[in-house]
Amino acid sequence: MTMSLNNIREAAQRIKPYAHRTPVLTNESLNQQVGAQVFLKCENLQKVGAFKFRGACNAVYSLSAEEAASGVCTHSSGNHAQALALAAKMRRIPAYIVMPDNAPQVKKNAVAGYGGQITFCEPTLQARESTLDMIRLDTGASVVHPYNDERVIAGQGTAALELLEDVPDLDVIIAPVGGGGLLSGTSIAATEIKKGIRVIAGEPEMANDAFRSMQAGAIIPSVNPKTIADGLLTSLGDLTFPIIQKRVEQIVTVSEAGIIASMRFVWERVKIIIEPSSAVAIGVLWEKKIDLSRLKIGVIISGGNVDLEKLPWL
Amino acid sequence: MTMSLNNIREAAQRIKPYAHRTPVLTNESLNQQVGAQVFLKCENLQKVGAFKFRGACNAVYSLSAEEAASGVCTHSSGNHAQALALAAKMRRIPAYIVMPDNAPQVKKNAVAGYGGQITFCEPTLQARESTLDMIRLDTGASVVHPYNDERVIAGQGTAALELLEDVPDLDVIIAPVGGGGLLSGTSIAATEIKKGIRVIAGEPEMANDAFRSMQAGAIIPSVNPKTIADGLLTSLGDLTFPIIQKRVEQIVTVSEAGIIASMRFVWERVKIIIEPSSAVAIGVLWEKKIDLSRLKIGVIISGGNVDLEKLPWL
Repeated sequence: MTMSLNNIREAAQRIKPYAHRTPVLTNESLNQQVGAQVFLKCENLQKVGAFKFRGACNAVYSLSAEEAASGVCTHSSGNHAQALALAAKMRRIPAYIVMPDNAPQVKKNAVAGYGGQITFCEPTLQARESTLDMIRLDTGASVVHPYNDERVIAGQGTAALELLEDVPDLDVIIAPVGGGGLLSGTSIAATEIKKGIRVIAGEPEMANDAFRSMQAGAIIPSVNPKTIADGLLTSLGDLTFPIIQKRVEQIVTVSEAGIIASMRFVWERVKIIIEPSSAVAIGVLWEKKIDLSRLKIGVIISGGNVDLEKLPWL
Repeated sequence: MTMSLNNIREAAQRIKPYAHRTPVLTNESLNQQVGAQVFLKCENLQKVGAFKFRGACNAVYSLSAEEAASGVCTHSSGNHAQALALAAKMRRIPAYIVMPDNAPQVKKNAVAGYGGQITFCEPTLQARESTLDMIRLDTGASVVHPYNDERVIAGQGTAALELLEDVPDLDVIIAPVGGGGLLSGTSIAATEIKKGIRVIAGEPEMANDAFRSMQAGAIIPSVNPKTIADGLLTSLGDLTFPIIQKRVEQIVTVSEAGIIASMRFVWERVKIIIEPSSAVAIGVLWEKKIDLSRLKIGVIISGGNVDLEKLPWL
């Protein structure tokens, strides 16, 4: 079944009691810097500090009472793990999280802090998948993939839905792309709500698998990418790629220097904490590889989870 | 003439086309940490990154066309200087700013960036005042004091007005106190809008002149205070002190460690950049010297102007 705006509207109703309606911020210095009128949809101010809560919450509350009783599970060491743990906690069901044993302590603590039950495994994709399989068979928990899941995609699309409610006359929406959950949800919402709106993705030059996939017309996996934008390391999924192919105008790559400069500018001028992955979307405007001047541009600020001990400009 | 809620309502109308209506944020981690329900009025997201824009803007747009033609002037090296420069730029009138010649380059640049015409002087109060006097006589510009000015006080009160529109059932409002412009405006708005609301101020232990003034029943000047909260170094004024005496329940002092811990917690969990002076208001909740548990508490986050090269926890 093809996903549509309806899935996103339903998700919006479903998560409304649990998620923040995040503010849309504007900033004159940023507008002048990039030569356009920018509207920042601040998912860094969402629960768990990232848009990921929307998708996880929609997935958890989409389960029947019977399904829910057995809990949910996933493998992730990032924001999705925290998001799923918190959504499950809200519904008072268990969340089983598979994490590589070399994940940073701060991420382990965060997931445990939201009540997630962590199973550690070796840091390989194979170990993650086999461990998750074992847990699923053991507990009967429902798997919630970080992005290749229609409930998750629909949830992520609710950010763009709200943004277009607040600023209906946007010319362009920019979102970062990693696995493509945010980008595909955003592109469905945007293109179905407003005919002719342009959806553009930002991707790190150093992890440009989605850019290359679009060129090739087939998913090209990401192989050991190294970028400061650590939320954008994953490859596209077989659900997200066709949506992106159909609805996203283009993917623009951003240099590491552009990511860091954009991140710092937003901290300094807009006064919000954004993570490098969010700065990739600003970076599209910052580096001006494509001409978006004088347009009204919505940017999904994906998250704000950073280590305050290690700032990239220090 | 006594100031009242009317002055603040008029200011709100006057500045509406120019100032941001800043968002009110909530955060579950913060609530749990302090044991209360906290609503953050984010003036760090205001123009120039501080509530100061409200007062400066109200003062500038209160001038008659004839007065305005000669411009405005002030002595300040902080957020008020930037705020006045920007408000004057918006009205297309000159802003003459007296700054000590040892002010940090970044502050000089910021004021110049907003089009302020800077005159440097020796870093003494006497030099500042005599230089300002000279400029006033030379240009006919209207002096806009950073806090001891009814137009400024009324402007600062509009933040609390908006906060109480968004969250009418607050039990307490907390604001930081330096010269008392924000605190007196906040206290007028709060106590006139809601009978019985408690207005509490946060002040650095290391710059506790307002605390001591309240005890003594007379203004005790601040003498060479040393605190990280560099927006709160000034003494109360003869306009702000009586308002504070009448309407503020108490002033709570906060340790340097409490300021830094509060600041870091807000950056890490709420994902917004706040300056140490803002953290002083959070510090009142953080240090729990007074029992505010389970109450609904509004906090005015006064600003977000910090040097990202020098974070106090690094």
